[in-house]
Order: sequence, then C-alpha cells, then structure tokens
Amino acid sequence: MKKLEEITRKIKPLDTQLMEETQQRLNNLTKPKGSLGRLEELARKIVGITGKKDPSIKKKIIFTLSSDHGVTKEGVSLFPQEVTLQMVTNFLQGKAAINILSKELGIKVIVVDIGVVKDLPSHPDLIIKKIGHGTKNIAKGPAMSKDEAIRSIETGIDIFEEELGTYGIDIMGTGEMGIGNTTPSSAITAFITGAPVEEVTGKGTGINNEHLQNKIRVIKKALEINHPDPRDPLDILAKVGGYEIGGLAGCILAAVSQRIPVVIDGFISTAGALIATKLVPLVKDYLIASHKSKEKGHQIALEYLGKIPLFDLNMRLGEGTGAALGITLAYLSIKILTEMATFEEAKVSREKN
Amino acid sequence: MKKLEEITRKIKPLDTQLMEETQQRLNNLTKPKGSLGRLEELARKIVGITGKKDPSIKKKIIFTLSSDHGVTKEGVSLFPQEVTLQMVTNFLQGKAAINILSKELGIKVIVVDIGVVKDLPSHPDLIIKKIGHGTKNIAKGPAMSKDEAIRSIETGIDIFEEELGTYGIDIMGTGEMGIGNTTPSSAITAFITGAPVEEVTGKGTGINNEHLQNKIRVIKKALEINHPDPRDPLDILAKVGGYEIGGLAGCILAAVSQRIPVVIDGFISTAGALIATKLVPLVKDYLIASHKSKEKGHQIALEYLGKIPLFDLNMRLGEGTGAALGITLAYLSIKILTEMATFEEAKVSREKN
Repeated sequence: MKKLEEITRKIKPLDTQLMEETQQRLNNLTKPKGSLGRLEELARKIVGITGKKDPSIKKKIIFTLSSDHGVTKEGVSLFPQEVTLQMVTNFLQGKAAINILSKELGIKVIVVDIGVVKDLPSHPDLIIKKIGHGTKNIAKGPAMSKDEAIRSIETGIDIFEEELGTYGIDIMGTGEMGIGNTTPSSAITAFITGAPVEEVTGKGTGINNEHLQNKIRVIKKALEINHPDPRDPLDILAKVGGYEIGGLAGCILAAVSQRIPVVIDGFISTAGALIATKLVPLVKDYLIASHKSKEKGHQIALEYLGKIPLFDLNMRLGEGTGAALGITLAYLSIKILTEMATFEEAKVSREKN
Repeated sequence: MKKLEEITRKIKPLDTQLMEETQQRLNNLTKPKGSLGRLEELARKIVGITGKKDPSIKKKIIFTLSSDHGVTKEGVSLFPQEVTLQMVTNFLQGKAAINILSKELGIKVIVVDIGVVKDLPSHPDLIIKKIGHGTKNIAKGPAMSKDEAIRSIETGIDIFEEELGTYGIDIMGTGEMGIGNTTPSSAITAFITGAPVEEVTGKGTGINNEHLQNKIRVIKKALEINHPDPRDPLDILAKVGGYEIGGLAGCILAAVSQRIPVVIDGFISTAGALIATKLVPLVKDYLIASHKSKEKGHQIALEYLGKIPLFDLNMRLGEGTGAALGITLAYLSIKILTEMATFEEAKVSREKN
C-alpha cells in the first residue's frame, strides 16, 4: 500500500501553459490552422503530459498482462480457459496480432503472467509475477482479497518501473489477454459509470444471444452478492475485478506519476483505467483513448472518462492491438510538431486575413 | 485519347473467389473471428484487388500533384496563389506534413508540377509535366479545353507508369496541392452526385462565412455558365475541374489497370476518384477511402462512391496526409494476413461452438 500511496502523491496536473504555447507553434507550421485536426490535439496533449516543449518519443512500450478468471466456470466465454496460457505462448513466439503490429510499428511488447491458472515455462521474454492462479468466481464471491487487489496494482507499478529503468519508456500502451475478462470489465464499468449491466455487456469473443443473457445474469449476480464499496476502488477491483485489470491500473498510475503518456487499448484496458482514475482523478488527463472497441460497454466507459477515441476500426481483440495504432498516431503527431517547417523557414506566404 | 482507352479496356473486376478464401484464412488465425474488424476487410480487399493470395506491400507511393486554379481570382481561398509554388518547394525540401508522415511510414512521395502558374526551377525530385500555367477561371468559362482534360488524365497515367517501371508500386496513395482546388472539387462533387452546391462547399483552408457564401455563388455560376455534359466525365473535368484532379484520375486508372490498390486522400483526391469512376465504374471497387476530411463535401462524395472511410481525425490538409495513414493500415492488414499464426500452428484451442 505504501508504494501505491507514494505514486499517488507524485501525480500532478498537465502543463496547460506549455500546451497553449504549443498550439501557437502548430499554427506557425506550413499548413492551414488546425488542418491536422486530432494530430495537433495529440501533440498538444503530449507536450502537456510530459511538460517538455520538444518531447521525444523513441521508446514505445506496450504492457500485455495475462491472467485467468474464475468466472469462466459460468460459461461466459466462447473459448476454453486454457487459451489464456496458449496465447501467452503465442505472444512469446511473436506470432499473435499484437506482435505483428508492434514489430512493424517499432513498439516493444512486454508479456506478463500476472495470474494465469497454470504455470508457464520460464522464457527470457516472459515476466512472471503471479498474484494468484486465476481469480475466484465472482458469481460466488469476491474475485480476490483486498491484499491481492493492492498487490496487483503494485505489481503493475513494479513492472513499469523495471522497464523504465532498463529499456526506458517514452510512451506506454495497455494490453491484456485473459479468457473471460470482458465479464469483470463489464461489472467494473457498470458499477463505476452507473450504466445498466445490459448496456455495458457485449459478446466478448463472439458468444450468441442466449449466452449473452447468461453473461448479463452472472454480472448482475456478481454485483449483488459482492456489493462493492463505491467509494473504494480497491474494493471494486477486489470484488469484481481481475489481476490483469489491477496490474494495468498500476502501470497507468506509474506512467502518470512519471509524466509519460498512456495510450489505452479497448474495453478491458479501459476498465483498468477506470480503477486508476477512481484512485486518482488527475489520471484522466494523461490518458489517450486509441480506438473504440466493438465490445458494447467500451463507448460508455470512454464517455465516463471524457474521451473521444482516435479511431474506430470495428476491432475487439485486445492484446494492445488498438493501442499499437494509437501509439503510432501519437508518435507521428510529435514528429509533425518538431520537424515540419514554419511559414517563415519555408518562405511560404501566410493567409490573407 | 488512345492511351486512356487502352487503360480503360484493361480494367477487370476483383477476384471475389480469392476474397472468400481469404476470409476463411483470416478465420483460422489466432484471434476471435472477425475481431480485427476493418483490418480484415482491408486484407480481403487487397487480395481481391491484386488477385494474389499472399500480396506483398513493399513499394508504397503517394503521388502529390500540384496545380493552380484561375478561379482564385474570385477570392475563394484564404491563401494567395503563390502558395502553391511555395509549398511545392517545401515538399522538395522534405519539410511539409506529407514529407514528415511519409518518411516515418516508409512511403515515397512523388512531387509533380502538372500546372503551377509560375515555373519552378528544376530539381532531381520534381517531375515537371505542365498541362498549362494554371487553369482558367471557371466563373467565366471552362477551366481547360477538352484536349487538356484528356492530356491531364494521360499525364497521370504516364507518371504512374514511369514510377512503376523504375521504382515499382505495390500500393498507391493520392495527394495534391493547389490553392483554390476545393472550389473545382465542390463543383465536380455537386454535379456528379447531384447534391446541392451548398451541401458540398466547405471552408477549404479556413475562409469565413461571408467568403463561403461567395464561394458557393462562384461554384453555382461555374456550373450554370459551363453546363457540363453529365454523360461525359471528360467534359465535366474540362468545364469545372483542375489539372491535378485530372492527373489523379489518370494515376488511379493506371493503378487499377495494373490491379494495384489505390488509397484515396481527402476531398480533392475524391473528386479525382469521381472522374475516374465516371469513366470506368469498376474503378470504385479498387478504391480504399482513408479518412473523412473535415471539408464539408467529402462525406457526400464518399457516400456516392459507397465508401466508409477508415478513420476521421478532423484533418483537412490534403497533400496525401490521410492517404499516408491509410496506406499504413493497408500494409499492416497484409502483415496480419500473412504473418500471424493459425490456431493449428500455435496449438491454441478453438472456440467451443
């Protein structure tokens, strides 16, 4: 808990003065004012986050945290639970979607086992920091103890800080893998945003309507029997969350405390962002929403955070795939800011106003 | 005209059989079915366009065609006409937005003077193929002669074929620079789609409401006094078009005849695509709409072409900046198709259906 409290105290507001100066600078670049739209918004935001006039984005990292969920016993997913472990192996072989995208886009993927049910063999690229062997079934009781909830967040902080100390991080993306994890994400989203469970519960990997009705019942039951404390994000995480969701909240808090921009992936990542934001409301300003997931509750979670996603490609894979594209847009926005010619440098005439 | 007719005859439908097989293949990759959304759609489409089961996208090209417009005399733009030439110089120095994005994304930009008013000094990276020194004022008469319209399209074909023969082209993006060119683009869009001029006329580089009303009057007058022949796209181009718009139509037709995917940028590029599609309706299937421009008429032009843009970042710069991002998504979609592991290869269990 001490680690979490220390991180929390370090979080400061964005540098809005520098953001205004950055818009002036963007207005002097050889293009009509505002014509690069959201790329200009991204550049401004990254300057405000980092507090640096000329931020440099070289080290791009995605944390893909994997964990299992006891609630899969309730038949909430189309895929068997063993797929979590199998997909981690796929990540380590570099053949999953997140690997392909990240390789092409110059992003390093950090694969973490934070709570897979079975044990994976050691691998040079796998970080094993299990909080437990899968969470408990939230339809029967809490997902984890309060102590585990704190440890999952502090483990996220540790993972972030270790990577920052060794490789370095200029921008961070969130990613995850965990069969069944749209179920706790829907529970968290419903509870924190106040939206009805029906409106934040989607088909995950592709269940049919009958299974969707069952999933909704399971989530309602989980919220009823666990009655999380609305004032205590750690209690929400413990009662209806997941280890990877807590871990991502920790990564986010650690990044924000270091003034490093955070690019959020899809629905599960946004559930982690909801927990982090509940703990420290200032976190919200540091988040960049990459895509709008096809998973039903995502839009509601994003609206709660006041975020308009950068793009909507009908994706719903997770792993960090949307974050990979979002990181690239953020990176390009800074290249625009720092490398384009001004009207004066290029001897281009200004508008006639 | 002979060159245009030859190209037109070469254009064939997409390979829909191969597209269906590609979806089967995408369904076997280690991800829930359809979970990569529009990236899957892009991969399928590129297979159908190229007719290749395993297309390779290595040579990425954007053609940025520059030209001037006599209609700037009517006060339709915020920037003085000399900016067209100045921006071409900026492109050649590698300091404009399109250069920054393309450099980062591994795209080659081909800069062409197809009709700038003044003459640019020769430069190793500048292709000079002027049809004329700016078009005539469409508020007073036709933009160009019918012969010039044909030559602008055939010049686009030449430019494409020369680049294909020397460097090679696996995917093509459109780009343009020409002060005043949203005006002919609005005229073309209104005339071809049948939408009212008011609905397809926007603020271009950022004119105020008063100037917008003037721009609308100018476009209405241009259509009235020139009364283009609705059955003849070459007449539409000649009466209310521009050299770069014809040139882009030519690049598009040449790419399509070679089964090379075409990524369309914003409003002016889409006006070129409207001309190309009017000439050969099959062209439509080869087009990938990158972004939705903030320029008002773009959405209407895209709807006419049956296209849903991949993203909307509130951009309205042109040059090919949206196409650069679209090409990157297309490229990534093919990497996903050809490099991801299948369930069988990765020994990942399938859904339980």
